[in-house]
Amino acid sequence: MAGRRDWTRETLAAGIRDGDRRALARAITLVENGDALAYEVVRDLYPRTGGAYAIGLTGPPGVGKSSLISALLRHVRPDGTEVGVISVDPSSPFSQGALLGDRIRLSDHFLDPGVFIRSMGTRGHLGGLAEATLQALLVLDAAGKEIVMLETVGTGQSEVEVIGIADTVLLVLMPGSGDSVQALKAGIMEIPDVIAINKMDHPAAKTMLNEVRSILGLDKEREWRPPIVLTEATRGENVPELWEKLVEHRAFLESSGQLEERRRSNLASEVFSVASARAKQHIERAVADDPELRRVLDAVQRRELDPLSAVREILEKVFKVDGSRA
Amino acid sequence: MAGRRDWTRETLAAGIRDGDRRALARAITLVENGDALAYEVVRDLYPRTGGAYAIGLTGPPGVGKSSLISALLRHVRPDGTEVGVISVDPSSPFSQGALLGDRIRLSDHFLDPGVFIRSMGTRGHLGGLAEATLQALLVLDAAGKEIVMLETVGTGQSEVEVIGIADTVLLVLMPGSGDSVQALKAGIMEIPDVIAINKMDHPAAKTMLNEVRSILGLDKEREWRPPIVLTEATRGENVPELWEKLVEHRAFLESSGQLEERRRSNLASEVFSVASARAKQHIERAVADDPELRRVLDAVQRRELDPLSAVREILEKVFKVDGSRA
Repeated sequence: MAGRRDWTRETLAAGIRDGDRRALARAITLVENGDALAYEVVRDLYPRTGGAYAIGLTGPPGVGKSSLISALLRHVRPDGTEVGVISVDPSSPFSQGALLGDRIRLSDHFLDPGVFIRSMGTRGHLGGLAEATLQALLVLDAAGKEIVMLETVGTGQSEVEVIGIADTVLLVLMPGSGDSVQALKAGIMEIPDVIAINKMDHPAAKTMLNEVRSILGLDKEREWRPPIVLTEATRGENVPELWEKLVEHRAFLESSGQLEERRRSNLASEVFSVASARAKQHIERAVADDPELRRVLDAVQRRELDPLSAVREILEKVFKVDGSRA
Repeated sequence: MAGRRDWTRETLAAGIRDGDRRALARAITLVENGDALAYEVVRDLYPRTGGAYAIGLTGPPGVGKSSLISALLRHVRPDGTEVGVISVDPSSPFSQGALLGDRIRLSDHFLDPGVFIRSMGTRGHLGGLAEATLQALLVLDAAGKEIVMLETVGTGQSEVEVIGIADTVLLVLMPGSGDSVQALKAGIMEIPDVIAINKMDHPAAKTMLNEVRSILGLDKEREWRPPIVLTEATRGENVPELWEKLVEHRAFLESSGQLEERRRSNLASEVFSVASARAKQHIERAVADDPELRRVLDAVQRRELDPLSAVREILEKVFKVDGSRA
């Protein structure tokens, strides 16, 4: 708790508004810990938010997402654009190595005062990573960052929830991302707004480009056809082209009036996700604290009470709602 | 609703106990639709369950999970083992093709009275696919199936929830499953109990075997070292060896006393998953039905009320719980 007493609700909010790096770092640590002070500060600052453009980056591990972020930063920083980066790490405590590797790849930018980079895990968080990511985005937004990049690893449903608040979703693949290509093809992965195929020097890069292009080509109804860019992040190759496509997607959303609509629907989805994550935590704690509810689980284990009846009893007891209708 | 009046709670439960195929088909349709009759019948039959051994198959699309199930059925059926198969399809309504393809691959077994196969989506389901899968498993268990295979596509968190009730988890990969290998390596995919690398004729199969083996080898603490089997499902090659590994895992769980422990923890997790899915549905419907709660979302959109305060208001209104602690 050392250092915490340096910040009050007022000084922390003022520090964030001024873009003070120590204030940002402190606020995001408080967000990560689910601290009440973070909640109050974000509540105070919320009317100032909405100015940042949020880009969500997703994709399997190892495709070079962090290198691509680093290359995008090198591309956009010369014109003075202020950028925030949040790398969300949903992995187990055993894989701190990946996190460390990411930090090294992004370390070129640590001394740049116009860039704020933070890796974030989840600790005591009632609302899970989706909540922490949303709150951290709002902090960086209120600090005047024009672009906030949200990075998460993986391509499943939970990852999509984490970056579900983004205005534009960039999927990063590489030659060898066969599983992701199959998932796009089978329709079980949502179509992103822009696709980068990184490690373009690999001999299979063009084959993958054609595969992905033909999958996306099947959907002719779509108003926005997701562009695919071959990149080599470590050399910065085609990174300006990738940035151009991200800018074009934003312009498309704005000119078609879809940006407001997307933000409305993203915010509503986030509110539902966070509320249900909190409801789940509430149920788990209630069962842990209540011997009667633990006996319900024991009866399920002994095959005396079926699981759905247990769900009903728990919902009725915890939330006082009719479990058969909940 | 035609046909429904043929079954009462008593006749349906009796039909399931006798293993009657029409009763099983009807019961699973009712489960899929979230029908109250299914709930009552499963409640009645629950004390008879626990005899089936549940094997969960997961893996990216296109690796040959259905072909492998078909090959496993050809292997185990000659000795009379009764088997149930539930293929869970969490994909969008646009990808019915995949489902149809699976059905074709499994069609050899449709006339075998000792096998019951069913593809299942989710429709009006309050508790989502995890709930439907659990209830369908219990129906097949009560019908005396000795083995129930639960198949789902994908490798993310939501897929794991769907087959979270399985005693043994089999991950199916193929050469080209680079993303899954990276996910195992990064520790963001849970280590399964058994791994099959299908399409073993592919020149890259051995390379993938070595890669996966070296990843698993890093974890020397593990009491059960997940075996990896190269298979060619269409020719049935190495399918007896794969079956042997599944049987060994079961024997390991039984002899070490971990089977009961795993089932207890799986059942508790399922109860929490289903309860939170229902809580989420309850919140969504409450917001849809209540103009006051919709106004809360509107205020978030207008940047007047921050998302976390909205979550608190919604939880307090819907569940009468303290939203700051929920």
